[in-house]
Amino acid sequence: MGVDPAKQFAIGIDIGGTNTVFGIVDHRGSIRYRGALSTKKYPLVNDYMDALHQAILPAIEQAGGKEYIKGIGIGAPNGNFYSGTIEYAPNLSWKGIVPVAAMIKERFGVLAALTNDANAAAVGEMMYGAARGMKDFIMITLGTGVGSGIVANGQLIYGHDGFAGELGHTIIIPGGRLHTGTGAHGSLEVYCSATGVRLTALEMLAQQPAQDSLLRNYDPEEIDSKIVDDCARKGDTLAREVFRFTGEILGKALANFVMFSSPEAIILFGGLCKAGNLLLDPTRKHMEENVLPIFRNKVKLLFSELKEADAAILGASALGWELK
Amino acid sequence: MGVDPAKQFAIGIDIGGTNTVFGIVDHRGSIRYRGALSTKKYPLVNDYMDALHQAILPAIEQAGGKEYIKGIGIGAPNGNFYSGTIEYAPNLSWKGIVPVAAMIKERFGVLAALTNDANAAAVGEMMYGAARGMKDFIMITLGTGVGSGIVANGQLIYGHDGFAGELGHTIIIPGGRLHTGTGAHGSLEVYCSATGVRLTALEMLAQQPAQDSLLRNYDPEEIDSKIVDDCARKGDTLAREVFRFTGEILGKALANFVMFSSPEAIILFGGLCKAGNLLLDPTRKHMEENVLPIFRNKVKLLFSELKEADAAILGASALGWELK
Repeated sequence: MGVDPAKQFAIGIDIGGTNTVFGIVDHRGSIRYRGALSTKKYPLVNDYMDALHQAILPAIEQAGGKEYIKGIGIGAPNGNFYSGTIEYAPNLSWKGIVPVAAMIKERFGVLAALTNDANAAAVGEMMYGAARGMKDFIMITLGTGVGSGIVANGQLIYGHDGFAGELGHTIIIPGGRLHTGTGAHGSLEVYCSATGVRLTALEMLAQQPAQDSLLRNYDPEEIDSKIVDDCARKGDTLAREVFRFTGEILGKALANFVMFSSPEAIILFGGLCKAGNLLLDPTRKHMEENVLPIFRNKVKLLFSELKEADAAILGASALGWELK
Repeated sequence: MGVDPAKQFAIGIDIGGTNTVFGIVDHRGSIRYRGALSTKKYPLVNDYMDALHQAILPAIEQAGGKEYIKGIGIGAPNGNFYSGTIEYAPNLSWKGIVPVAAMIKERFGVLAALTNDANAAAVGEMMYGAARGMKDFIMITLGTGVGSGIVANGQLIYGHDGFAGELGHTIIIPGGRLHTGTGAHGSLEVYCSATGVRLTALEMLAQQPAQDSLLRNYDPEEIDSKIVDDCARKGDTLAREVFRFTGEILGKALANFVMFSSPEAIILFGGLCKAGNLLLDPTRKHMEENVLPIFRNKVKLLFSELKEADAAILGASALGWELK
């Protein structure tokens, strides 16, 4: 359209169960404008789309109009890259299959693409974060749930149907803890998510009634991964054991992933990373112990280099740049 | 070089621990000439290379000379595509790192590329077998060991170091049966290889001393997967239970692989496939039970369409076509 590419922008939108954040990003990865709106407030997706359009429009005009927008990238739970749809997302009130990319394209008059939030974070990390220059890496998001984005040969792996990379649901301990959301036993997510950390803490408190712990000062109902983290930092033995155990399961899972795609690095992202070496050390130990010698001491285990608030926007915007 | 591409050939070489087989393949995938030589007979790799060169030379001359050969592809255990080397292959007498692709290129004066045997089989299946037209599939070879080749976005996944796809060594039952070769407990290979089937049969015979079985007619030393297969075909309950159990472990493993790369199909190849539905039915059942609903009843579980003797040659030759 005759617009200097260096003056173009991409829009990144991250749709979460509670909030949506978005930003206008320049080609260097600087977020030039950012905003947010409540996802929950709009049980009808059409109302949500109208509100989103209204919220972003002033920023587009500030950027010089829609011809300065190369594309819009969207990260969303259960987002399918191939179809541009969100499909049966348990944490969103919009049910069934929602053609999000098409709806955004129609409202904004700009090309749009969508993928799941963990894939978007992986792309963000590859363009602007710890995975710059890497062609083979795995992003693991340790938050309310456990998500993943897998890059091989420099490309995201979407699989034949767009749903590849559900590593949080791989079974690490057959017959292990029940995941009440999926019905599976012993999946990675039921141990290594924020919820998993809470459940491990409650189990350990119940199983070791004689052991002192700062965690006993809290109502079990209120114990969450942040409280476990706080207690662990204060040197609480039981709280530290929670992260050691979490790292053991995570490390065993990562060993299997390494033997699948032999990544240069595994990048950890999300709330649980705040535990730092309390989580990283046991994770690395059990990953190394469980891989074939041929993979040992080769895979970098890194924390994300992107601010959590920015990663989702940057990753989503990266999809926008690739649109033609 | 002015040679009509339709008249060109590729050479496929499959280096096994015992024997090497090779063939000259036309662009339609017909093996026009085939031959073999003993790998074991040549403890020194230089002697082996000379013998291989002598064995293939007459066929190259019959094809019109080396200018009619587009390239030579080699499949070998522990073969590394990036470096063209065989690295620390436990079943070969050549120790350390052997620059096989370079040695072949030098002797034949033709471009050469190398990968591991399971990757070569996956490429063969993609060009000429059950995976024709597929961009996302996983090949699992169930033989003396368990190997794998993973294709995503139409490309083999080699990983950052060329060693991706060691799915036989992923841990399916933590703390399970010891793999004496690797020291790991509960890997896929220790259950779902020919050796694994033998071990399962011996375990079941010991654990159920009161149960009649045709397998009791054999010296335990001689029981192998073929004998278990023969007895299962004759309706032997215990032998059938061996394959049911093998399928259960395999199915659980495949479920994890599906949630990694969401393949259109998983293709099973190798000696254990002779068990047919005795293996396939429990495998499918446990795969479906262990995947997220979003993947259920979507992944084709297929047997290879290539003759076992041809697959390795065709797959290796396919690498040869891609050389430039």
